[in-house]
Amino acid sequence: MVNKPQSSRRAAGVPPVAPAGGARRRRSRGRPRAGHSENVREALLEAARELFLRYGFRAVSSRQVAAAAGANVAMIRYYFGGKEGLYREMLESILAPLRSRIDAMVAREVEVDLGGLIAGVTRTWAANPWMVGLVLREVLPPDGPLRPMFLKEVAGRLAPLVESLVRDEIERGRLRSDLDPELIVLSMVSLAAFPFLAYQLTSRLFGVRLDEAFAEQLAGHIREVLYHGLAPRAGHTEERRQSR
Amino acid sequence: MVNKPQSSRRAAGVPPVAPAGGARRRRSRGRPRAGHSENVREALLEAARELFLRYGFRAVSSRQVAAAAGANVAMIRYYFGGKEGLYREMLESILAPLRSRIDAMVAREVEVDLGGLIAGVTRTWAANPWMVGLVLREVLPPDGPLRPMFLKEVAGRLAPLVESLVRDEIERGRLRSDLDPELIVLSMVSLAAFPFLAYQLTSRLFGVRLDEAFAEQLAGHIREVLYHGLAPRAGHTEERRQSR
Repeated sequence: MVNKPQSSRRAAGVPPVAPAGGARRRRSRGRPRAGHSENVREALLEAARELFLRYGFRAVSSRQVAAAAGANVAMIRYYFGGKEGLYREMLESILAPLRSRIDAMVAREVEVDLGGLIAGVTRTWAANPWMVGLVLREVLPPDGPLRPMFLKEVAGRLAPLVESLVRDEIERGRLRSDLDPELIVLSMVSLAAFPFLAYQLTSRLFGVRLDEAFAEQLAGHIREVLYHGLAPRAGHTEERRQSR
Repeated sequence: MVNKPQSSRRAAGVPPVAPAGGARRRRSRGRPRAGHSENVREALLEAARELFLRYGFRAVSSRQVAAAAGANVAMIRYYFGGKEGLYREMLESILAPLRSRIDAMVAREVEVDLGGLIAGVTRTWAANPWMVGLVLREVLPPDGPLRPMFLKEVAGRLAPLVESLVRDEIERGRLRSDLDPELIVLSMVSLAAFPFLAYQLTSRLFGVRLDEAFAEQLAGHIREVLYHGLAPRAGHTEERRQSR
């Protein structure tokens, strides 16, 4: 899906890049005229979203982003201080909704339950197909440019939150107390992340799809496996044996 | 761990590269003399293992491999037909044991059970730390040079094998019949692969380690989650409630 930026952008709720018309081309050199600056700034952000999310931070030059936005490359330094600043701001606008959801959960302003969290994670992957390539390319490698930010802002805040939810559930007798809470969280993350992270393989081998229907199906399956396990319950086994 | 090739190679059971002594340097130009050809061939394979596994196929040139082996770069074409042939043969020697294990399982020459398979997978990751970088860099990206081979030879053969094992277990009443067998396999793969695949994050957040003790601990945890789930069994819950 990283090869289909148009549909990815639609699925991510990102507005399509406005066609580079003559008007924008004519004002593409020098400092933007008053009143148009927001347009240039937005066009640069949209082109950055399109190109960085598709090809990665390192593979895309400032010049390419500027060209796609129909703007002069100097405008990137003018508005964002450089390529890195543009990339950071582009990500910021994309990750803002995710971050505020995490904030609300950490502050316990919203009701959080583990099943709902799992469904939320699978839905997020399915609704934002560009995330697959981004995480694979920019977060997981040892030198991934997004790794420190992702660790600090996303994973590093979500993991302790989920672990405290798990501990609460153990305390209340709703989860087994003989398992390591940290490994329980790791298992939850594994079940909800791997299918999408390894999408290039899992779509072929297991029919994983980046759509809402699959996200719901997978979330339901994960809840079943986590809460009830794969072993048949005693009563069910008996019934099946008797019916043969 | 991809930054520590020495320890990775030890853990992978790869013999250390012989120090490039004067003797090898002296015969590094032109066609190898009779009797020495096996040495040059082996030195090239070892250097290839060292450099390709550490930096990836694309990042390493034939010239660099030859230099590390103390051999003339022409020897790569002579023995392996080129850089790609050398890479393929290096991987072949590394993946041969894995492939013959899969062969034996597909032919059902060895007893296969799901718990044993999970333990085998976690042990394989822990014993071969270089695999993490290799899969992340060369298998998962859309244009990963190893993706077609990995799909065909490894994942594409293991997944149907495991699915048929799961179907057998359902048939025998040892696994629930109301879950999708394909999603069961996906969940097993997720639980045993994600912790290592996302090692750069999971080592920080969940204490994942590439050693045998952690591999056993994780395999045991996965078996518990898969077979019994996280919910306390009715009897256990009652006991806990009464003891309060």
